[in-house]
Amino acid sequence: MTTTPTRRTNGVDTETLFATIDAVRQQPELARFQFRATTRWLDGTWNRTTIGGFHGAGGEQAREQEFDVEADHPVVLVGADRAPTPAEHLLQALGSCLTSGLANIAAARGIELHEATARVEGDIDLRGILGIDDSVRNGFQAIRVTFHVAGDANPEDLARLVDQARRRSAVYDVVSNAVPVQVDVATA
Amino acid sequence: MTTTPTRRTNGVDTETLFATIDAVRQQPELARFQFRATTRWLDGTWNRTTIGGFHGAGGEQAREQEFDVEADHPVVLVGADRAPTPAEHLLQALGSCLTSGLANIAAARGIELHEATARVEGDIDLRGILGIDDSVRNGFQAIRVTFHVAGDANPEDLARLVDQARRRSAVYDVVSNAVPVQVDVATA
Repeated sequence: MTTTPTRRTNGVDTETLFATIDAVRQQPELARFQFRATTRWLDGTWNRTTIGGFHGAGGEQAREQEFDVEADHPVVLVGADRAPTPAEHLLQALGSCLTSGLANIAAARGIELHEATARVEGDIDLRGILGIDDSVRNGFQAIRVTFHVAGDANPEDLARLVDQARRRSAVYDVVSNAVPVQVDVATA
Repeated sequence: MTTTPTRRTNGVDTETLFATIDAVRQQPELARFQFRATTRWLDGTWNRTTIGGFHGAGGEQAREQEFDVEADHPVVLVGADRAPTPAEHLLQALGSCLTSGLANIAAARGIELHEATARVEGDIDLRGILGIDDSVRNGFQAIRVTFHVAGDANPEDLARLVDQARRRSAVYDVVSNAVPVQVDVATA
């Protein structure tokens, strides 16, 4: 028996990627996803979020395992620093979204990556969340992402990968364009 | 020798919390923070973000340990499902920020929590990020958070905690109001 070798660039199965895009083009309802996360308070500012199944590709998708992610506040903010802050998790969501996209886009363009890193910085004035000054926003005032990319392409083409990753990033879109968020309390 | 017992509600050292807020009120420059995250591409859509020191409270703050958080795409999106998706990390950042804030606010109001959970759902149409339809946005179209809160207070006061957590959440502000994001490529 022989197996057909999968064509992979950057660890991305580009044949399946293109087939997936074609399938969604034919059946747009496959593209409707719902992702979910459930955060449970543990102690003080410490909590744990469980991420399991999601809806997409035409149905409910179970996962082999659930993922747990913790958050806390640092000691200078009266937490116990048991995990990253929620604001840092937002930055990592942005860095990871751009980086996952970059690897896919490079593979689709036949560019082998040697390395890619994204440093994400967010400036925040805590007088907002501490309730000291209502004219100061609660969230980041600015976020900067700096990529280092090395691969089998000239610098201009590598820079174009980053630009296209930005143009196709779900988290970049959310953070730079906003999304309506509804917050409710379930009655017990 | 005796130690002064710390007054704690919900595991929050409220005395230190109030002292911190007073200190920042006196010296607003203490409130200027910069959080950071560095994402490294691993393989395909899989990457790992390291979160370490930050700037704040008047200087650089080292941490006892760095935190690593991974992300990947699920198999139906041609990843290997080794970790949550970046979009799910955004949802967990929102759930954890609201929940950390809720515990602080409850403590500040002297309300003992018995439990608090936040279920976060985000609807997304992947025709955006797959480049199939430019009229479809890349990010979530809507996010809903549903809290279950139990504690030593009536339902109205518990609901007010959730409302105040929303009003003072860094991540809620970012996601619902947007932030300028700059993406650059460092020249090697």
